[in-house]
Amino acid sequence: MGNIYLLRHGKVNGPAALYGQTDISVSTTLNNDMLCLLMKNQDKFSHLVTSPLKRCAELAQRFTKETNKPLEIVTNLQEMNFGDYDGLAFDDIPYTDLSSSNSVSDKTDEQNQPWRHLERFWQNPAEYSLPNAEKLNDFYLRVEVAWLKLLTDYANENVLLVTHGGVIRMILAHVLGLDWKNEKIFNQLQVGNASVTHITSTSLAHLNDANSNEERASYNVQVKNIAMPLSCLLLAGQSTV
Amino acid sequence: MGNIYLLRHGKVNGPAALYGQTDISVSTTLNNDMLCLLMKNQDKFSHLVTSPLKRCAELAQRFTKETNKPLEIVTNLQEMNFGDYDGLAFDDIPYTDLSSSNSVSDKTDEQNQPWRHLERFWQNPAEYSLPNAEKLNDFYLRVEVAWLKLLTDYANENVLLVTHGGVIRMILAHVLGLDWKNEKIFNQLQVGNASVTHITSTSLAHLNDANSNEERASYNVQVKNIAMPLSCLLLAGQSTV
Repeated sequence: MGNIYLLRHGKVNGPAALYGQTDISVSTTLNNDMLCLLMKNQDKFSHLVTSPLKRCAELAQRFTKETNKPLEIVTNLQEMNFGDYDGLAFDDIPYTDLSSSNSVSDKTDEQNQPWRHLERFWQNPAEYSLPNAEKLNDFYLRVEVAWLKLLTDYANENVLLVTHGGVIRMILAHVLGLDWKNEKIFNQLQVGNASVTHITSTSLAHLNDANSNEERASYNVQVKNIAMPLSCLLLAGQSTV
Repeated sequence: MGNIYLLRHGKVNGPAALYGQTDISVSTTLNNDMLCLLMKNQDKFSHLVTSPLKRCAELAQRFTKETNKPLEIVTNLQEMNFGDYDGLAFDDIPYTDLSSSNSVSDKTDEQNQPWRHLERFWQNPAEYSLPNAEKLNDFYLRVEVAWLKLLTDYANENVLLVTHGGVIRMILAHVLGLDWKNEKIFNQLQVGNASVTHITSTSLAHLNDANSNEERASYNVQVKNIAMPLSCLLLAGQSTV
């Protein structure tokens, strides 16, 4: 049986914004604290995998330097790209009060009402894309591909994957057979900074893929807990309570 | 804002079985350990709510006796009733090897093949009910009613709810807008014994219900973590890591 620990990066060092592929850092102090907790739990992990973005990779690279555990950087496990809104501080987005608008044409002129893009996106992220952003469907598919490759490449290993809130939600949607279009997975399931989601996998059988003539593995995947604080990792699994 | 901590009871003192409304206990030793952890976290809770079944209620009653916190017993928050299979030890269910059956009539005679009931139920719990058992739809509806009442009765309070794995899954399905018929919620999401699922709720608005002429409250509910070990409760929420 293998274990995969999905660790969300620490709180980033910047104003409130949609951070997707904008390469913003976590403070060194916070990463020091996270590294300290990871070092105490180092026996739990045999391999490290990380998103290439700094807020994940800096911690993973420091951890691998301390422990010599092998590290793989997987581009497909980086956060969704939010296009023109990626990294734009919410405070810098002008607010237009729609209720005070006098003409119909004003209300439909989205160029002048940038918050409407965000509101529409939050209400229905599967159907409404932000300007020049990655589509949610494309994001789901690339995470799904990376996840299936990770299960195969690290079968029976104990992997720490440092990644993002959006990526963790897409993996959960895939594993639990949830509808990734369901906006409640984004709005009502909190995947906190520095939280750990623990998944186990058991290789069940090797199936012959008739189309590619290749052998493919089948896995039974179980979600043990979702969004547990990193500080709990030492306690989890040690006792029955 | 209110907090609801869904605590699943400890591992029960009996052989492996489907324990639904069979009233089986948790060992006193295990409940001692759980009570000790609850006492250390007692400031987190203002009110206690429990399923009436012993494996939940005994712990809740001991905790309320120690702390004088008010306790409510809610019948609708007990586990699903598994009918003729409720509490029946798996080891006592005779196994009939279907592959060695010689006649078609043998294969369809479910009276003689009791494991087939269980297999069908596990594969499709929404459509296939065990003999004399509660239907999954009815179970979901009674838990939903109890959950909405709990949100209203304990708005802005900090509630410890001692309950069952099935009940916690139905609450999560309701809160996250998941399909309660999805068998992966039962088979692939593990809600461990003595685990805590933390949900916050914020009262948003009081709406007038045109049908009943009564005022109803609307809540924004957020899932903070799912199935975290009880031993982590002290650490959760205290630090950023």
